[in-house]
Amino acid sequence: MANAGCGKSFEFPVRVRFGDTDPYGVVYFASYFRYCHHGIEEFLRHAGLPPEEYFRNRQEGFGLPVVGASCDFLKPVKYGDELRLAVSVVKIKEKAVTFGFNFYYLNSEQLVARGEATIVAIDRTWKARALPERLKDAVAAYV
Amino acid sequence: MANAGCGKSFEFPVRVRFGDTDPYGVVYFASYFRYCHHGIEEFLRHAGLPPEEYFRNRQEGFGLPVVGASCDFLKPVKYGDELRLAVSVVKIKEKAVTFGFNFYYLNSEQLVARGEATIVAIDRTWKARALPERLKDAVAAYV
Amino acid sequence: MANAGCGKSFEFPVRVRFGDTDPYGVVYFASYFRYCHHGIEEFLRHAGLPPEEYFRNRQEGFGLPVVGASCDFLKPVKYGDELRLAVSVVKIKEKAVTFGFNFYYLNSEQLVARGEATIVAIDRTWKARALPERLKDAVAAYV
Amino acid sequence: MANAGCGKSFEFPVRVRFGDTDPYGVVYFASYFRYCHHGIEEFLRHAGLPPEEYFRNRQEGFGLPVVGASCDFLKPVKYGDELRLAVSVVKIKEKAVTFGFNFYYLNSEQLVARGEATIVAIDRTWKARALPERLKDAVAAYV
Repeated sequence: MANAGCGKSFEFPVRVRFGDTDPYGVVYFASYFRYCHHGIEEFLRHAGLPPEEYFRNRQEGFGLPVVGASCDFLKPVKYGDELRLAVSVVKIKEKAVTFGFNFYYLNSEQLVARGEATIVAIDRTWKARALPERLKDAVAAYV
Repeated sequence: MANAGCGKSFEFPVRVRFGDTDPYGVVYFASYFRYCHHGIEEFLRHAGLPPEEYFRNRQEGFGLPVVGASCDFLKPVKYGDELRLAVSVVKIKEKAVTFGFNFYYLNSEQLVARGEATIVAIDRTWKARALPERLKDAVAAYV
Repeated sequence: MANAGCGKSFEFPVRVRFGDTDPYGVVYFASYFRYCHHGIEEFLRHAGLPPEEYFRNRQEGFGLPVVGASCDFLKPVKYGDELRLAVSVVKIKEKAVTFGFNFYYLNSEQLVARGEATIVAIDRTWKARALPERLKDAVAAYV
Repeated sequence: MANAGCGKSFEFPVRVRFGDTDPYGVVYFASYFRYCHHGIEEFLRHAGLPPEEYFRNRQEGFGLPVVGASCDFLKPVKYGDELRLAVSVVKIKEKAVTFGFNFYYLNSEQLVARGEATIVAIDRTWKARALPERLKDAVAAYV
């Protein structure tokens, strides 16, 4: 856990895998979005919220689809590099949360990519609804 | 459609995409298994069986998971190459079908990879059951 | 080819594949970014510029990495759905091009996702440089 | 590290990720082959051989492509499950090594999948050559 500007962030290592790169050995930009989602998964798990019960919860009738995402790629990262990903909470609304993602080389403060992704709480009919209480509490601790 | 030895095969082009290769620009071996599954998808669609109603059919209560797969990689295929994939039916049993996959360079008879994958019909409890009739008929036409 | 607002766009079908979805059968948001890149690949190919000679050209010493991308996901698309992707050119600068991506259900005008991605021309040292002439001409025809 | 029959094996956890499953929430069979490759990567790293210097070594002029792979899928594994992967060495030849992969539920002896993959040492012209000495020594310790 680290301070990233005004708020807290949750950090974990990201290993660049075979199959994550483009044909030239540089991380394929689409792979960063997978890493971002892993970031939300690890964030939830760390907060005691099992991702497999939160991205879709049939019992309580809610889901948490990603409705928007963006990322800027600042440095070429290569196969064999290891990154650390700092996940923070950028914005909380009644029905949505926006996560922030900062990618650094491991053991470095050099930013290599940064992005955002917004998830919205939906009910069984895919209509937006209030965030589940425990999720709201978990993300509030990171603002 | 072409004759591949004793049986018929169904052919379609496979475009090597960004993200399908290893860091050195050569098709990542795991990508071939995705291509093989696309081969089954296209085979089913060609036979008038929509994949989304056959890999899992909630109404009729069956599924068709892959229970085994293998592939040999004979030539290095690069980003920018285009392949054609010939899908054939290797073996039909009461509850299972084994598909064969031959990958060639487009407009060439040079084999670059060949594999097999077996799907089994299961019921709602994941117990093996007889193949759905229409699937059985569709694959029988290719033996 | 179609008119999308003020400019032209290049369109092609996108088949949602096994492995493109989340565990609930809805297209995983990271897959859209792969589709976007396929969009650039098809756009280049359509313009007579082989992607494998343009994303990285060792002979002429240039590359075209993606430096930023964003996408909004408006409708849940399911396994079995087929989309059409309209690729347009949003902005051309001396050293960069921004492509636009509109995803529709096939045979429909209903927008399901829309995004952007910017590629920058770099030289052998990863320094930004002027866009290759033929690329500049190809994208200019779409503004 | 654990005994798997007659030889040693190297074990590490495999987290089933969003994007690793089929549309029904069960691990897509192609994902296991990615996990197998991660297994070789972790095996090499554990043996002090950085994968990024071994799968392709421009300086010493060798590569280690996968020339064949197979896997059987015994149990349906779901999003949210965690596995452990035991990597062993099945066979060593002058120019090739075959790795074995046993997948278990974490904290369980129940086998959910098992596979094999063979890598061959090649020179700059893609001709088979003797295994690099340090690799040969590393795998010999696991037979």
